[in-house]
Amino acid sequence: MNFGFLIFPDLEELDLVGPWEIIRYWSRFAQGPENCLMISEKSEPVVCNKGMSINPQVIFSECPPLDYLLVPGGQGTRQEVDNEVLIRFVAGQAQYCRALLSVCTGAFILHRAGLLSGLRATTHWASLDRLRDLGDVTVVEERIVRDGRIWTSAGVSAGIDLALAFVADVAGEETAGRIQFGTEYYPSHRSYGGLQKHEKAPQYMKEQD
Amino acid sequence: MNFGFLIFPDLEELDLVGPWEIIRYWSRFAQGPENCLMISEKSEPVVCNKGMSINPQVIFSECPPLDYLLVPGGQGTRQEVDNEVLIRFVAGQAQYCRALLSVCTGAFILHRAGLLSGLRATTHWASLDRLRDLGDVTVVEERIVRDGRIWTSAGVSAGIDLALAFVADVAGEETAGRIQFGTEYYPSHRSYGGLQKHEKAPQYMKEQD
Repeated sequence: MNFGFLIFPDLEELDLVGPWEIIRYWSRFAQGPENCLMISEKSEPVVCNKGMSINPQVIFSECPPLDYLLVPGGQGTRQEVDNEVLIRFVAGQAQYCRALLSVCTGAFILHRAGLLSGLRATTHWASLDRLRDLGDVTVVEERIVRDGRIWTSAGVSAGIDLALAFVADVAGEETAGRIQFGTEYYPSHRSYGGLQKHEKAPQYMKEQD
Repeated sequence: MNFGFLIFPDLEELDLVGPWEIIRYWSRFAQGPENCLMISEKSEPVVCNKGMSINPQVIFSECPPLDYLLVPGGQGTRQEVDNEVLIRFVAGQAQYCRALLSVCTGAFILHRAGLLSGLRATTHWASLDRLRDLGDVTVVEERIVRDGRIWTSAGVSAGIDLALAFVADVAGEETAGRIQFGTEYYPSHRSYGGLQKHEKAPQYMKEQD
């Protein structure tokens, strides 16, 4: 099993590393996909939006067929939607993938690769209108939206919830529980400043206590 | 202002990148520390426990005095507590720091640098007994424990909560709220398999709904 994580300049760090931690924990301790690969167009280091510099493990031209592919978001997606090499890579791999996942504005890359048309999906709250404006996506203001084999999530840290929900679906509730316990993901319910009731907040936030 | 993030082989990815995302968002959008540095003993790439390879931004010998220092955990801490160069670096920087923070088993590095003796602290649930066995730390089974300028947190993903609580303390509730909203950190309350009631679970988990 090959689980790919697409990386590109100006991606948002936590969009990538939240799911990476969950999926890698799955592969290490609960028989998840043995090959987890950070995949880039070129072999040079990828500098993320907040400055972290990471080294790809494989480049597009040497990447094996993937069973799963996750696309993080971040400012870089605004450039990468116009990167034909990257979009072609995603569309090509999608032929083999059992599931494709995006975090935050990674949804726009899936869309450009022709994978979101006619489907339900979500993205970071600040980009929901932009996703609606594409015209062929039914935007759903939930934390995680699944439509067939396409899973999209809300912004940045929502990728952790996405990855756990995905593992629960593929490998069962007990496996997801082991990973949640191992990564000690029982987050605080604390809200600072009550912004989940902000007018721009997505529906799922407004409904949460 | 200089905010340092200690990096070393076999650190746990999310221990580092959870707080990194929060603190970098603070510096970028809410006037937090302008210099956020990933700091390593050597200039070569650092391979984390789950395989992510990151490039340090500064090495110990060229590191400016830090206002804040965060130490992630992970399997690598078991080696690094015996790395005299690293421990000396942490102890030396601690002379200038306004605050020192650890995530997960990063607490053992703070301890070896002489920074936890006589204090209240926490770590990953699976290492709580090991922290107690050190003999001079009062172990508190909370998600975040602050004792003066030393902040420790529970395992892996608890570092996100730690970083937000820290920002709220230093820069106020409104700033923490902006970061929480921007990084869309309104996590699901979902528990898979109910393991937060496991006999090994720390007190804070058992008390959460």
